[in-house]
Amino acid sequence: QHPRRRGEKLPGMRLVSLARAAPRVRAASTAATPTLAAALKVGDALRPRRRRFTEEDVAAYAGVSGDRNPVHLDDAFARGTGGFQRGRVVHGMLVASLFPALIASHFPGAVYASQSLKFAAPVHVGDEVVAQVQALHIKATGARHIVKFATRCFMDDEETLAIDGEAMAFLPTLQLSTEAIE
Amino acid sequence: QHPRRRGEKLPGMRLVSLARAAPRVRAASTAATPTLAAALKVGDALRPRRRRFTEEDVAAYAGVSGDRNPVHLDDAFARGTGGFQRGRVVHGMLVASLFPALIASHFPGAVYASQSLKFAAPVHVGDEVVAQVQALHIKATGARHIVKFATRCFMDDEETLAIDGEAMAFLPTLQLSTEAIE
Repeated sequence: QHPRRRGEKLPGMRLVSLARAAPRVRAASTAATPTLAAALKVGDALRPRRRRFTEEDVAAYAGVSGDRNPVHLDDAFARGTGGFQRGRVVHGMLVASLFPALIASHFPGAVYASQSLKFAAPVHVGDEVVAQVQALHIKATGARHIVKFATRCFMDDEETLAIDGEAMAFLPTLQLSTEAIE
Repeated sequence: QHPRRRGEKLPGMRLVSLARAAPRVRAASTAATPTLAAALKVGDALRPRRRRFTEEDVAAYAGVSGDRNPVHLDDAFARGTGGFQRGRVVHGMLVASLFPALIASHFPGAVYASQSLKFAAPVHVGDEVVAQVQALHIKATGARHIVKFATRCFMDDEETLAIDGEAMAFLPTLQLSTEAIE
């Protein structure tokens, strides 16, 4: 179904993982063998997170957020007023939730300071996306570190950018969590 | 319980509403009588949206987003590692969902182009917040308009800023929806 799925490693990236997480690495068609590392460094990319948002996900998010914009809930409206030929689109902020989810899965206790989001392409219900997070800058601040991350979400072809942006988060430690990595 | 609740109108703001929505205007201690208007103009503030996020909201959002950071789910962890004396905090991206929800409630079919978010103060489970959205710039683009909004979320005291940022959204029309205003 996804013949073009390729390695999730961008050029120059060190893919961060831990020895205990290694057995969970997916088979990939390119050499994406993760470098085993215990502490985050500038340039490191966290293990990407794939997600396919279902109709039920969108309905649940509409419920908890109160965002019942019909472009997310009504195919005919999405095609007409919304101009989305393929119908309903996933709430951009739901897709963007992948970034803090990904960061927190590696660094439980991470606290968000900022996030910028540019919604570059729509994500439709049923599309698979892959969220990628890379450390751009790390600074110690008291007992914590504040880290700037590049946060990008691609369509499953891994060429079409759906969301581009950056996040700043306070991390309680730069050591990657063994338990929390999916 | 909220003796300090004051009018939700910022200096110089024209609070946008519609004649049909006027009966729903809350009694306020200051002169916040909305100017009745049918089309959005620069400087207009949309009717603010109040929300108190419950434990159930946070659990539902953790489920749909996959963000199970214990600072949101575990009081002891939030106090310890998180450094939040009052315990669990609401996911910042859930609080930020108020902005597109508010915009879409006035402009069904709005499509987000960008959002910046600075998380200035934590929102705890049970805190009431008020989201405010003001039009900063409006530009016609084909059949639609692209509008830059200031997006701010305050704690219930209306002095403590929880989230500051800006959003850009494509609106199918500048006419405010009569049905969708809460």
